Amino acid sequence: MKNGFENARRRSLPPQGVAEFKQAFGARFVTSDAVRAHHGRDESPYPACLPDAVVFPRDADEVAHAVRLCDRYRVPVIPFGAGSSLEGHVLPIEGGITLSMAEMNRIISLRPEDFTATVQPGVTRTQLNDALRDTGLFFPIDPGADASIGGMAATRASGTNAVRYGTMRENVVSLKVVTAKGEIVRTGSRARKSSAGYDLTRLFVGSEGTLGIIVEVTLRIHPRPEAVTAAVCNFPTLADAVQSVVEIMQSGIGIARIEFMDERAVGAVNRHSRLELAETPLLLFEFHGSASGVREQAEVVREITRDHGGSGFAWAENPEDRARLWAARHQSHFAGLQLRPGARSVATDVCVPISKLVDCVTQTVEDLKSAEFPFTIVGHVGDGNFHVQMLIDPDCEAQWRAAEAINHRLVHRAIGMEGTCSGEHGVGIHKMEFLKTEHGAAGLELMRLLKHAYDPHNIFNPGKVLAWDA
Amino acid sequence: MKNGFENARRRSLPPQGVAEFKQAFGARFVTSDAVRAHHGRDESPYPACLPDAVVFPRDADEVAHAVRLCDRYRVPVIPFGAGSSLEGHVLPIEGGITLSMAEMNRIISLRPEDFTATVQPGVTRTQLNDALRDTGLFFPIDPGADASIGGMAATRASGTNAVRYGTMRENVVSLKVVTAKGEIVRTGSRARKSSAGYDLTRLFVGSEGTLGIIVEVTLRIHPRPEAVTAAVCNFPTLADAVQSVVEIMQSGIGIARIEFMDERAVGAVNRHSRLELAETPLLLFEFHGSASGVREQAEVVREITRDHGGSGFAWAENPEDRARLWAARHQSHFAGLQLRPGARSVATDVCVPISKLVDCVTQTVEDLKSAEFPFTIVGHVGDGNFHVQMLIDPDCEAQWRAAEAINHRLVHRAIGMEGTCSGEHGVGIHKMEFLKTEHGAAGLELMRLLKHAYDPHNIFNPGKVLAWDA
Repeated sequence: MKNGFENARRRSLPPQGVAEFKQAFGARFVTSDAVRAHHGRDESPYPACLPDAVVFPRDADEVAHAVRLCDRYRVPVIPFGAGSSLEGHVLPIEGGITLSMAEMNRIISLRPEDFTATVQPGVTRTQLNDALRDTGLFFPIDPGADASIGGMAATRASGTNAVRYGTMRENVVSLKVVTAKGEIVRTGSRARKSSAGYDLTRLFVGSEGTLGIIVEVTLRIHPRPEAVTAAVCNFPTLADAVQSVVEIMQSGIGIARIEFMDERAVGAVNRHSRLELAETPLLLFEFHGSASGVREQAEVVREITRDHGGSGFAWAENPEDRARLWAARHQSHFAGLQLRPGARSVATDVCVPISKLVDCVTQTVEDLKSAEFPFTIVGHVGDGNFHVQMLIDPDCEAQWRAAEAINHRLVHRAIGMEGTCSGEHGVGIHKMEFLKTEHGAAGLELMRLLKHAYDPHNIFNPGKVLAWDA
Repeated sequence: MKNGFENARRRSLPPQGVAEFKQAFGARFVTSDAVRAHHGRDESPYPACLPDAVVFPRDADEVAHAVRLCDRYRVPVIPFGAGSSLEGHVLPIEGGITLSMAEMNRIISLRPEDFTATVQPGVTRTQLNDALRDTGLFFPIDPGADASIGGMAATRASGTNAVRYGTMRENVVSLKVVTAKGEIVRTGSRARKSSAGYDLTRLFVGSEGTLGIIVEVTLRIHPRPEAVTAAVCNFPTLADAVQSVVEIMQSGIGIARIEFMDERAVGAVNRHSRLELAETPLLLFEFHGSASGVREQAEVVREITRDHGGSGFAWAENPEDRARLWAARHQSHFAGLQLRPGARSVATDVCVPISKLVDCVTQTVEDLKSAEFPFTIVGHVGDGNFHVQMLIDPDCEAQWRAAEAINHRLVHRAIGMEGTCSGEHGVGIHKMEFLKTEHGAAGLELMRLLKHAYDPHNIFNPGKVLAWDA
């Protein structure tokens, strides 16, 4: 399968550089095939591409030292969290050193009184929520996988709670990053807001390791709502479900989660998670608030869904049922993969203004009728964001091309509707071709100026987000 | 009074440049003393400093043309909205061309179904809210003055509603900006979220005209809450009031507004707005939600304030009373100025984590005991942000120096508490000296790299935010 990077020039450490790394990191500088292979791919369909070595730093100073060495020898340096990225973000396509954040997994401080938590980048979202269990607070951002917080910041991730709580853009308070010179910069304070200069925090959120390495993340955490209820509702057609979402959002009730699954995705999670959901287009809701507030929200939603043929509005009031439902939703990526053993997933990720959502989804389903492979559709539809998961045979070039053609048309459809090619997965390798369409040549030029200013030797995760000479 | 920029080198258009501007803008290229003087100062205490000319563009293309001319002749170009900035942002300290946005005041589109509004930068916040009146939606960000939306985006402004609705950082969906090459870039789509490359939108929000000129703003607008109530509560001491705020925020009830006024500020607004508020430290609250939700929130707040000696918990349920109360709060800057006719205001703007707020305010009041000028304290305390308004005689250098010394100590106190020198006013000229303390030399270097990359000839509002060779 062609990636377009088979011919990328690899840039490797000279023997002197290898010696310096060994001296600094000892047994934490690893060149074994198994470890390199483990760090050579992600959840994208791209075949593996190995780094020259994997380094396991323990703190910001060690990352800074590694970056200084890589900068000196002009060798790529790629941060690696949980490896759950979907667009080839962590593939070292020009070789170089992968920095695994596996040993930078310490929770540095919890400050419930200020609604902040500070963690090393290798901490995962469930690890953080476990640590918050007794505080009455939680961290809401939940991509499907148990991703690392550093990776989530780097891709500007979101998930099912973004409707109410925002994405990593809104929930990163500040970062510590290592620059190309190997300096450690704190991008902001712990204040809730600031107008003190350029927003360096938001600049690194979503930069996918291409401008610097995130070595610490201070997050906003949220009070656990007094009451939570969840509900499931079935619809005769996809358009009915999506139209309901549009009206629910426009009602302004402040719902926490609205997730869509098509009948294929429901079938997949039924089999994977032993559920018995009716296999029709379906919406999952969650309401957060006071006991009465939650009841009020649910009543509005029940009325709107009824107007669109919604049926079987079923409650999941107790925590176990709710947890089971959301676990199933979170596992839908893996559940989908099991529809076709051995398949890899090409995932789309467009996000459109809510008023365009029905048209965008409907036209996409029409386009998918020609597909010769299984697919599912799920979506964080309260945000206007949905994913087609196309299950291709990784050895069949025709399927890969067909899936890419569908994605290509979908992205152009979404951009034509004032939307974006990526709601939450990021660009990685896979979406680079769309950035010029989305941002224009002048917009891409602003990004290129930034990349060249912050990474003059092109060492930070090269070949991702935008080409060096874009 | 010394500004530190009396000796700045002015860069003026050559006759050929003047001719080109005249040809392009005709009577909208203005060099009269009165118009230049009007654009030579803001609400800061700095004496006026005149541009060489004021240009009144009508659209993005005209701004692009003006910027290309300025870039060709290496002449400063300064955007000017309502002139309500507080830190000298709009003063053309190196001369050059001021671009008044007075004729770029058109509302381009309202899209209630997507919760977005697109406006030219000269539209003011009240103009936008008037236009939204029949849509059931509103734009919540409300600095005291009727600022322009472009200026609010440029300073990352907020106001009293930020506790619930966020600041301009969260409420700008995308921008159109003119780059130094005179190209027009759209920084993002109309989707609610995106992971498609670097966050150019957040990069220009808060950049104070130093990286490019904002020529269009797409904003997030919000459903008007079903129910709104406001309340006022008096406290025996400032510490009691502030401690109440901390506990209210920690209760997680989702309050919309919590504003603090000290007894001096209350006195000033009583006189200015003919109110009869008891002249003690006071909190103003506003609750947004459903009828029952609002009652629940208010009950929590009433209990917490009672525990801290709060008294006279008075309601303003009808819209007229509420409007009068908030108008008074919004006018507190001007009300304060009237405490001392002829005075100018030195305003502080620190923002600290909520757990540090009591200490920060208390220590500041202690420090102010030595002040030989009147002052008031007001604050968006739900965000940890408060302002000391120091009313100095603009002709008395000793008072200016004393006020600056108090501000200097306050900023260092706040930064020491993991806070910021500016919560919402921005840097302008006045806070440049603090950026190195707040961001460190390496952080400032990242900002400088950005400035040099985006504005190679230093034409965009030079001498603001950070020095060219910082």
